[in-house]
Amino acid sequence: MVAVSQRLAELGLRLPDPPTALATYVPARRVGNLLFLSGHVCRNRAGVVRGVVGDDLDVETAAALAREVALDLLSSGAAQLGSPDAISGVVRITVYVRSAAGFDSQSAVANGASDLLVQVFGEQHGRHARSAVGVAQLPLGAALEIEAVFETSGE
Amino acid sequence: MVAVSQRLAELGLRLPDPPTALATYVPARRVGNLLFLSGHVCRNRAGVVRGVVGDDLDVETAAALAREVALDLLSSGAAQLGSPDAISGVVRITVYVRSAAGFDSQSAVANGASDLLVQVFGEQHGRHARSAVGVAQLPLGAALEIEAVFETSGE
Amino acid sequence: MVAVSQRLAELGLRLPDPPTALATYVPARRVGNLLFLSGHVCRNRAGVVRGVVGDDLDVETAAALAREVALDLLSSGAAQLGSPDAISGVVRITVYVRSAAGFDSQSAVANGASDLLVQVFGEQHGRHARSAVGVAQLPLGAALEIEAVFETSGE
Repeated sequence: MVAVSQRLAELGLRLPDPPTALATYVPARRVGNLLFLSGHVCRNRAGVVRGVVGDDLDVETAAALAREVALDLLSSGAAQLGSPDAISGVVRITVYVRSAAGFDSQSAVANGASDLLVQVFGEQHGRHARSAVGVAQLPLGAALEIEAVFETSGE
Repeated sequence: MVAVSQRLAELGLRLPDPPTALATYVPARRVGNLLFLSGHVCRNRAGVVRGVVGDDLDVETAAALAREVALDLLSSGAAQLGSPDAISGVVRITVYVRSAAGFDSQSAVANGASDLLVQVFGEQHGRHARSAVGVAQLPLGAALEIEAVFETSGE
Repeated sequence: MVAVSQRLAELGLRLPDPPTALATYVPARRVGNLLFLSGHVCRNRAGVVRGVVGDDLDVETAAALAREVALDLLSSGAAQLGSPDAISGVVRITVYVRSAAGFDSQSAVANGASDLLVQVFGEQHGRHARSAVGVAQLPLGAALEIEAVFETSGE
């Protein structure tokens, strides 16, 4: 398998600075060869992106935000493990989409994250289990929040 | 422990065809002796069963659908591992119920899945940790979605 | 690391009686060195605490309830493993907050649980990954529900 750092470079991707944990929880917690990532909300340079998907934001915009959150998750994982190359695969993600009444395209939104992870890790290591759900409210009014379980190399 | 395939036959149960993943995620992802299952939405022969529990669907109907989703989860797990007999137990399920305002019987709905899993795996291996929550919207308008972690035999 | 039972005593904390599982699921399920805890709803001596956070309950009240749920989770884990001292750390919690329209302080609510867990386990073992989400409905009308993954000592 190509190293994650090399694959990111090939894709022209640069990991953002990892988000800082604001409380007594941490962005990522390792146990054995599993790395549990906290729910990461969508953000841009100005901060958290607020709004309701299917109302304030359309599917394409939300999917693009989901892709950015996936990069944030990688960044947090890399910060915890010392290098992105210590992440060996993606086990599961849960995508919470703050959804307008009747909005039912949570899967299309989640694809923004899933596609990026498969681009980076390849089919064998990148394809993952996934749940996508529509929720009423998210912290700070964020439009979406994604949590993950990654696999790590070594122990 | 009786093999899962034998127990399914004793109960007169036949696993449905496994649902196909529609995107870059997969129905099940194994890591070590844990098998992470994607969120599976309720469906019947005609496709996804849409609706709001406590409004369009009553508790009994929703619990029967939850039972079918549990069979789908087993089917996906069996497809991933090669045989239902490679699933050795149930660790955890999360049941998302698309809920009407004021509907608070998510546990009764979730019992449809939990009871089936204990029937198949027995008390010792089948009893599992569980969360049941009421959400506003689910992919494709589904009435419920269930994700799971199974235990596998061997590694 | 100081034993959990000793640390609880130092903090003047006594674990409540573990909640009893009402169905075919159990409060906690161990696999390897991971202990998966079911979603635990908030309760007081009178039973489940119902209500909508940001409407019926304010943030401070909900955070205090989250702290109590964290003690319930520890109690369930201790009951499953035989002793609180068999719990060696906190891996992840998911905090579901039944949220009023526009309520976006789910993180502040969740801190009630996170802070307690770090008090008990210390920085190194107690800091954990976390997701906090706002949901429309919870079982029995509960104001919040928390599920967890703990780490256990030995196997």
